[in-house]
Amino acid sequence: MKKNGEMAVRRPDDMHLHVRQGELMKVVVPQTAAVFKRAIIMPNILPPVTSAERLERYRERVVAAAGSASGFEPLMTFKIIPGLSPDVVQELKQAGALAGKLYPEGATTNSEDGVSDVQTIYPVLEEMQRNDIVLSIHGEDPDVFSLDREEAFLPTLRQFSRDFPDLRIVLEHLSSAAAVQAVAELPNVWGTITLHHLELTLDDLLGGELQPHYFCKPIVKRPSDRAAIQRAALSGSPKYFFGSDSAPHPVDRKHAPTARAGIFSAPVAYQGLLRFFGEHDALERIEGFTAVYGADFYGVPKNGDELVVRRQDWTAPDEVGGLVPYHAGEVFPYTVIPGWK
Amino acid sequence: MKKNGEMAVRRPDDMHLHVRQGELMKVVVPQTAAVFKRAIIMPNILPPVTSAERLERYRERVVAAAGSASGFEPLMTFKIIPGLSPDVVQELKQAGALAGKLYPEGATTNSEDGVSDVQTIYPVLEEMQRNDIVLSIHGEDPDVFSLDREEAFLPTLRQFSRDFPDLRIVLEHLSSAAAVQAVAELPNVWGTITLHHLELTLDDLLGGELQPHYFCKPIVKRPSDRAAIQRAALSGSPKYFFGSDSAPHPVDRKHAPTARAGIFSAPVAYQGLLRFFGEHDALERIEGFTAVYGADFYGVPKNGDELVVRRQDWTAPDEVGGLVPYHAGEVFPYTVIPGWK
Repeated sequence: MKKNGEMAVRRPDDMHLHVRQGELMKVVVPQTAAVFKRAIIMPNILPPVTSAERLERYRERVVAAAGSASGFEPLMTFKIIPGLSPDVVQELKQAGALAGKLYPEGATTNSEDGVSDVQTIYPVLEEMQRNDIVLSIHGEDPDVFSLDREEAFLPTLRQFSRDFPDLRIVLEHLSSAAAVQAVAELPNVWGTITLHHLELTLDDLLGGELQPHYFCKPIVKRPSDRAAIQRAALSGSPKYFFGSDSAPHPVDRKHAPTARAGIFSAPVAYQGLLRFFGEHDALERIEGFTAVYGADFYGVPKNGDELVVRRQDWTAPDEVGGLVPYHAGEVFPYTVIPGWK
Repeated sequence: MKKNGEMAVRRPDDMHLHVRQGELMKVVVPQTAAVFKRAIIMPNILPPVTSAERLERYRERVVAAAGSASGFEPLMTFKIIPGLSPDVVQELKQAGALAGKLYPEGATTNSEDGVSDVQTIYPVLEEMQRNDIVLSIHGEDPDVFSLDREEAFLPTLRQFSRDFPDLRIVLEHLSSAAAVQAVAELPNVWGTITLHHLELTLDDLLGGELQPHYFCKPIVKRPSDRAAIQRAALSGSPKYFFGSDSAPHPVDRKHAPTARAGIFSAPVAYQGLLRFFGEHDALERIEGFTAVYGADFYGVPKNGDELVVRRQDWTAPDEVGGLVPYHAGEVFPYTVIPGWK
């Protein structure tokens, strides 16, 4: 931070984002585009992104929702569903897909069509390896106890790493010390880290009253897990980079007899990261975490745009188009000023 | 179960119950009184039960809410708050108090006036020991990680057991294998078990969508913890007996931006226990668990009334006076017919 309390940083990317569809998309995409230059757009919409045509149509809608002034660029993915033909992989690549996303069946929102037997998708993974398309994984085994699901998936991750040594793999939204460790050990595996997994433990979700706005998959875990995730983010290792997993739901699906999993962090994501890195005297490392390691992993150029970060309080919105964001109404110590406008 | 599909059993007691105050009390007390003969009435109302006068007034209101036809009898308790004079203990006993309840500060609903330094209440515990008043404990240390809070309290429980060898102690709503084991080991410690801790694990609360109606303190835990609690309930050991911890909250405090801890199980409690014991081929053990061991512990006569249990489907209510009960709308395999009407 310079003497005048300002700092210029490279405009960040969000390497894991849910933007939904329809009216919801029009509300949430501008929240990301106001700060982030690019985002890896998750394909678990209904119907899922599984063809070049659907990918292109989804991209057009995201671009339209962002508005041209933002300069926002969605980075597209497809969903690996049972029965997906390896033949479509090359076509998806030509349409711009950077990654194929694997959801174990039943692991999270819209994963009822996920994969239950990973052997069945080996031909697709081979084709992805051949075409240098990233394998993005929601790494949970939904058949075991909730807090153990991520760790129970790690043998499958190790199997992928071994069987596809030239496939670049990203384990999304790391939530446990065991997963952080697996990413460190496996040469072709990287990991994304969310703001909320840096900040929360299970105590925040249910230690006092029950907090639906802190409910996500994978579930936030023990203080020792959070500590391992924090160390990874602060380490400066290019193995770990930012993906918000911002996942909005309408209020009537969060404040209800039951609540869906997903934290809508996009409106506060970068401000939250600034606070986190600032509190750890590591502001100089936010650029690598948000604008360098992820770009390098996905093989896209680093952004040219800059943000100005000012040491000045900023208040998160109470609501965004009827949605309640993460940290609604909270005051953050840094204000972000787009440098490209 | 006899040939005709009916079984007569001693009318049960609920040895841990929250009946609240005001209009809420009028809704919830009859739900318990329809099946249970007696209940240990928790004293954590506002202001708490800390004097003979408050105890008598609260009992009168509970009796009025139950209605005379039920024959329901509340068993009264007081709350051990910081600064409570040992002098009031004898007066409380004369007013009919069977137990004093200890809440660590901040452990659950209305525990902001709980005890933070247990040494300060030693004079009260001594007076309780002298007067043969039971010490009832919400056994959680709220300063540690949520899933470890019960186990972290056990050293304090052992200290009480050692320092007050003639004090009869009940550790309420056992939620962990470690607590079940502590009750087994300590000669002057008993444990209550709820229906929901027999049935649920953390997966039920948050493994799929988030379920506020499965949210309680102590939090439901691992399958191995539930298994230990189930074994204790089925064991036929008089150390373990039933206390529902039924804890109603208005719907707008459960389906809200945040949800309060407490499961309103009273309307389905006995039917749920019948299903549980029936599924474990142990129906003959429900009487000890619900109508013998608790009465013996509290030194009250066993109930004379009988229930008739019929093997016939019974559907739990969807709502009770605007409250959503545990297992709302579910079908249970046994119907309970009051034998005393």
